[in-house]
Amino acid sequence: MDSLPALDPDASAEAIPGSAAAEAPTFLDRLFDAGLLVRTGVDGLYGRSGAFESVVDALDRLISRLGGEDGAEVMRFPPGMSRPAFERSGYLKGFPHLAGTVHSFCGNEADHARLLACVEAGTDWTEKQAATDIVLTPAACYPLYPTAAARGPLPEGGLLFDLQSYCFRHEPSLEPTRMQMFRMREYVRMGSPEEVLAFRELWLDRGTTMMAGLGLPLAVDLANDPFFGRAGKMLANNQRNQNLKFELNVPVNSVEKPTACLSFNYHQDHFGTTWGLTQADGNVAHTACVGFGLERITLALLRHHGLDLAQWPADVRSTLWG
Amino acid sequence: MDSLPALDPDASAEAIPGSAAAEAPTFLDRLFDAGLLVRTGVDGLYGRSGAFESVVDALDRLISRLGGEDGAEVMRFPPGMSRPAFERSGYLKGFPHLAGTVHSFCGNEADHARLLACVEAGTDWTEKQAATDIVLTPAACYPLYPTAAARGPLPEGGLLFDLQSYCFRHEPSLEPTRMQMFRMREYVRMGSPEEVLAFRELWLDRGTTMMAGLGLPLAVDLANDPFFGRAGKMLANNQRNQNLKFELNVPVNSVEKPTACLSFNYHQDHFGTTWGLTQADGNVAHTACVGFGLERITLALLRHHGLDLAQWPADVRSTLWG
Repeated sequence: MDSLPALDPDASAEAIPGSAAAEAPTFLDRLFDAGLLVRTGVDGLYGRSGAFESVVDALDRLISRLGGEDGAEVMRFPPGMSRPAFERSGYLKGFPHLAGTVHSFCGNEADHARLLACVEAGTDWTEKQAATDIVLTPAACYPLYPTAAARGPLPEGGLLFDLQSYCFRHEPSLEPTRMQMFRMREYVRMGSPEEVLAFRELWLDRGTTMMAGLGLPLAVDLANDPFFGRAGKMLANNQRNQNLKFELNVPVNSVEKPTACLSFNYHQDHFGTTWGLTQADGNVAHTACVGFGLERITLALLRHHGLDLAQWPADVRSTLWG
Repeated sequence: MDSLPALDPDASAEAIPGSAAAEAPTFLDRLFDAGLLVRTGVDGLYGRSGAFESVVDALDRLISRLGGEDGAEVMRFPPGMSRPAFERSGYLKGFPHLAGTVHSFCGNEADHARLLACVEAGTDWTEKQAATDIVLTPAACYPLYPTAAARGPLPEGGLLFDLQSYCFRHEPSLEPTRMQMFRMREYVRMGSPEEVLAFRELWLDRGTTMMAGLGLPLAVDLANDPFFGRAGKMLANNQRNQNLKFELNVPVNSVEKPTACLSFNYHQDHFGTTWGLTQADGNVAHTACVGFGLERITLALLRHHGLDLAQWPADVRSTLWG
């Protein structure tokens, strides 16, 4: 369903379908037609045009400016992480269905001939692929925790990191905001409960101000992660009851199901305990992160200000490109 | 072996081991110790510091400036591509051992319980992972060809594209220049044989000038891809005999085995035929690409100018950061 009404008549540079929604091209189709996203034949896997990337890059710089005074340590991980670290992280307990393991051919020349025969015949050639030591990164901060823990106890006052990477989630979808491969920018705070909660409050403020300044209608809502199965329902309820996760939502695909563009997560001592990460005083460290969905914010801007970047409101353009 | 002599005494800001090489820390160790690369526990999979990334970003911008007048269409693909497109590309014929397929859990709650029991027991939980529709991108240009072919015949004069993405090759190594996940910047030319060969000549010149301007010792050599198996030897010989691939090599890990930092590839009609890509006159299109290994060039700079970016020669710093 593609039924976002024009929330602001002045911002309806892009034609937003009303009652004729059923016949109108979807937002995804219009992104393809405008050349902003590029089809690959796989739902949720798209190429990006130079114009699309110019927005992603501008957002990345804007987020750097917002956090620029905080002295975060910049670290950039590739789109995959160590499988042993991934296994230990606990991700498989909550989200086995979203993870992507990387597999490779480890056979000899006869195996290779069989593989090519399968490809030729259109039958399954992937069964013999063996798992490598690499799993695709599910969220930009997952490779960070073991790295930080390896340095020893946190210094007095804790630590702050600045991350960005491509992430993978296996959830093929026709909603352009639900990509299988997308970029997440993050700030991650490690320290005492008070320090990390103050960090989360700060970024709830900053993130809300940033998105309002970009002319986007938004709501901050209590949220939960998409845990797997029936047991996952309980985990999701716990997460909500403890106010651990907030999301900043913007209507993109529809008003009824707005899109989480930023998320603010308090992990309590989950990663501290998992990785043996301690505060300067020896207590287990608490952690929190703020995550920015760079493609999602870009899509929100395209939805609300139209597909032609040159026609975006002057103040939005000025915020992004100075 | 880590035996690079100081090729230019003025550029030996970084201690380069001489006869005491056997006892000296490796280049990789020194990169870890300086915090430029970050251990993940997997050979060839590393985090990057902010300083390392500042070089990668500067190189990316420098390459954009060099090609800025050519009117290339910017396109950015995520680090994975469509599996059907990958199968059709022919990559599995030459390089089955380097490819990385992405697999996911597709079971129910009972399967999930078994998976977690395997993880807990330290036994293999990956066997039941099923191949998704995504394969990790082996070279930045692989997702481009089907995309370009879907547009129909090339216009008069052909097309030129500007690409960059993380790529994957399953070749765990302790040489820092042989990463499993790394970024490749590319320009890709599609057109007549004359057009694409002229493009390759132009970039052989530009690339050589660029690298010399960065104070790097270099050699341009005829090369071949690392084809698999005995049949691959013949493919490699053919590639050499036809002068299809050149590499711009810089000593990084050693003088004896210099590192290919740029590569210049003429594919003849391989991709044109594979994807039904034709020239404006109906003839099958030829293609060529120039690829820049962004981490490799960064490592070459660190090796030759030292691990402290602030101490790099003024002209190199000025070329990179203006």
